[in-house]
Amino acid sequence: MITETFKPRFCETDALGHINNVSYSAWIEQGRTSLLMERPDVELEANSNFVLAKLEVNYLAEGFFGCIVETQTCVSKVGTTSIHINSKIYQNGKQLIDASSILVYIDLISKSPKPVTGELRKLLEAI
Amino acid sequence: MITETFKPRFCETDALGHINNVSYSAWIEQGRTSLLMERPDVELEANSNFVLAKLEVNYLAEGFFGCIVETQTCVSKVGTTSIHINSKIYQNGKQLIDASSILVYIDLISKSPKPVTGELRKLLEAI
Amino acid sequence: MITETFKPRFCETDALGHINNVSYSAWIEQGRTSLLMERPDVELEANSNFVLAKLEVNYLAEGFFGCIVETQTCVSKVGTTSIHINSKIYQNGKQLIDASSILVYIDLISKSPKPVTGELRKLLEAI
Amino acid sequence: MITETFKPRFCETDALGHINNVSYSAWIEQGRTSLLMERPDVELEANSNFVLAKLEVNYLAEGFFGCIVETQTCVSKVGTTSIHINSKIYQNGKQLIDASSILVYIDLISKSPKPVTGELRKLLEAI
Repeated sequence: MITETFKPRFCETDALGHINNVSYSAWIEQGRTSLLMERPDVELEANSNFVLAKLEVNYLAEGFFGCIVETQTCVSKVGTTSIHINSKIYQNGKQLIDASSILVYIDLISKSPKPVTGELRKLLEAI
Repeated sequence: MITETFKPRFCETDALGHINNVSYSAWIEQGRTSLLMERPDVELEANSNFVLAKLEVNYLAEGFFGCIVETQTCVSKVGTTSIHINSKIYQNGKQLIDASSILVYIDLISKSPKPVTGELRKLLEAI
Repeated sequence: MITETFKPRFCETDALGHINNVSYSAWIEQGRTSLLMERPDVELEANSNFVLAKLEVNYLAEGFFGCIVETQTCVSKVGTTSIHINSKIYQNGKQLIDASSILVYIDLISKSPKPVTGELRKLLEAI
Repeated sequence: MITETFKPRFCETDALGHINNVSYSAWIEQGRTSLLMERPDVELEANSNFVLAKLEVNYLAEGFFGCIVETQTCVSKVGTTSIHINSKIYQNGKQLIDASSILVYIDLISKSPKPVTGELRKLLEAI
């Protein structure tokens, strides 16, 4: 699991006075990229990438400007040709968001799904 | 159903060369607000509002800058205290997104769900 | 001059109840790309592009959700190796924004500025 | 001066492969709010606020995903009824952005500018 903290931006609020729902999609993406694109140990095979196929976001409570955000991102399942990533977002210990992303492992030449195997699979199962 | 068309913005693309996944959340929100906040015939009761509880987005195909976007937004279900909104997004007749939003009808004083009844219910069932 | 109209998005507002200042940067960019990237008659030379060097935005009045935006974008000056683009943004006939963008014409191989000449110059002077 | 560091988000890039110009407006705003809204010692008078009147952004170099951003924000001038804020943005020690924001100190009831005086003035001059 990767835990990150940051300050929400004022432009991420909306006229209802709270964090706008769209902002959470950006925060969830940030957790995913920290997991899959920025870890030196997570090496994808050549001409391969994880492509977002489905995002499910549950909005559990309102978030606010002026309060540190904590995101927790982990791989919740490694399927044959896909992975599931779970994202939890908190402010002051209160959970705001529970989200699930499904990413398909794609061969970028043939544009078709390919199996997650070998070292990559072991590593993802351990995150 | 409400159909809207607009041009994607260059800032909505990302370094993979296509429309970034977060941009779709904004486009889906725009369809919801066109349905619920901008139609003069959709009048919510005093101190009441629809609050987003869940968003599910299926990414079916890549979207690109330089090509008109069409969004189709409709109420797919009127529940006891909630509604489901379906959003489809197209470019050149190809469907990029199929999304479902669940919004709960909330009494803003008590912060608790309230039934969707009467004229509002009839109207939403007909959209 | 290119004139465009669109609806502001709810996610473009902020907790002060009006359109957030960052949203205008996106709207100004949209006007620039409509002028430089989407007109079939504006053809840049091979391996060349206009690169944003400076943006100056004057915020004249508050903008609001629920009210159509009109943007007016024109080339205000064609310099030796750069162009100036002026952007005006209105709601209900009231001017919200007056902005100026300076873009440098760049040779993408050498990464250095190059002169705006010939047909491109004539066309830009006439927009 | 306030110095902050954070990771750029993938959704802040664009199809040219670098950080999109609009993203910098959000980063500049974040520095301003850290200075004016989040410091417990910066107390505005009742019914008063700083309102953005002008933003000038110089784009000095391209920014990229995958590289920590450092922002430096300071008050560069305290005028009679306004302040100037300077923002510098770096990646790997290379300056990407030099920006200047002019904010007017406004009486929120009369909507007119008011003098920056007393303790607030002294504090802002020292930041």
